Amino acid sequence: MGRWEPNAHGRLERAALELYCERGFEQTTVAEIAKRAGLTERTFFRHFADKREVLFAGSGELHALLERTVAAAPGDVTPIEAVSAALEAAGATLGDRRERSRRRQAVIDANPELRERELIKLASLASTIACALRARGVPRPTATLAAEAGIAVFKVAFERWLTEVDRDDLPRLVRESFDELRAVATGR
Amino acid sequence: MGRWEPNAHGRLERAALELYCERGFEQTTVAEIAKRAGLTERTFFRHFADKREVLFAGSGELHALLERTVAAAPGDVTPIEAVSAALEAAGATLGDRRERSRRRQAVIDANPELRERELIKLASLASTIACALRARGVPRPTATLAAEAGIAVFKVAFERWLTEVDRDDLPRLVRESFDELRAVATGR
Repeated sequence: MGRWEPNAHGRLERAALELYCERGFEQTTVAEIAKRAGLTERTFFRHFADKREVLFAGSGELHALLERTVAAAPGDVTPIEAVSAALEAAGATLGDRRERSRRRQAVIDANPELRERELIKLASLASTIACALRARGVPRPTATLAAEAGIAVFKVAFERWLTEVDRDDLPRLVRESFDELRAVATGR
Repeated sequence: MGRWEPNAHGRLERAALELYCERGFEQTTVAEIAKRAGLTERTFFRHFADKREVLFAGSGELHALLERTVAAAPGDVTPIEAVSAALEAAGATLGDRRERSRRRQAVIDANPELRERELIKLASLASTIACALRARGVPRPTATLAAEAGIAVFKVAFERWLTEVDRDDLPRLVRESFDELRAVATGR
C-alpha cells in the first residue's frame, strides 16, 4: 500500500465514528479503524496521535480562527459582538458536517472521559477568546465574562443545531442565541 | 485515640491544604495529612473518601442549595434573577472562608487533573440550575443559557473575590457581576 492515500484523513475519521457508534469508543481498536477504512495502522498514526484524537483533531485551527476573528473585528465593535463574530465563523467551519457532528456528539455523550475532554476543550476556547479580547484592550473581568458567556451561547446553539431537524444554519443559530443571551441577561 | 475528635473535619482539611501548598497535591499522602492534623488515617477516611475529596467535599449540599433557591424564587422572578439568587446564596456559604478558598484554588490551579475535576464540578452545577429552572416551566434553551451564563458570572465573581484585596463580600460581587453580564450582553 502506497504512502499516499486519497482522503485518508476523512476515511479514517468516518470509519472511526462508525465503529465508536456501533461498538463504543472503549471497545474499538486502531487496527479495526484502519481495517474498516481500508488503510494500515501506520497510515492511521500519520494522521492521528491516538483514537481519541480523531474526535478532537483540528482544535489548533479553531483556536487560531477565534483569535484571528476577534482581532480583526472593527475597533468600534463591542466585546460581545467580537465574540459573536468569532463563534459564527467557528460555526461556519462545521457548516455541512451536521451528520458527522451528531455522531461525534453521541460518542462523547456516552463516555465520561470524553465528556471531560470536551469540557476542557471548551474551557480552553474560552481562554483563547478572553485573551484575544484583552489584546484589544478589554479589561480582564469583562473579557472573561464575554468569552465565557459566548461559549455558553455556542453550546446552546450547537445543541439546537444537532437536535432540531429543520435548523441547519449553525452561524445563524449562533447569532440568534446571542440575541437570546441579551434577552435572558436583561430579564426580558 | 478516641473515635470522637473535636472538629476533626476542619483540622484534616486545614492540614491537607497546608501540605498540598507546601509539597504539591501529588506528593502528599493521607498518612502525612493525618499526622499533621494529630489524627489517625482511620479518622481521615471517616471524613473523606480520598485526598482529592478534601478539595471537593460539600458539593451535595451545594447542589441542594442551588436547586432549593431556584425553586423558592417568587413566580414573577425572571430566570436570570432566580439564578442570581441561587449563586448569591452559594457565595454566602463560602462567606468568611476566603483564605481557605485561596489556598484551595492555588492547589487546583497547579494540577491539571484537579483543574479538570473543577470544570466537571462547575458543569454539573450548571446542569442542576438548568434542571431547576425547567421545573419552573422555563423552556430548555433559555434554562440552559441562563444556567451556563450564571456559572460564567460566578467564576468571574469568585476570581475577583480571591484576588482583589478589598473585596471580601462574595454575594455582592456575584450581584455586581450579573449587572456586568447585562452590560456585556447588551454591548454597553
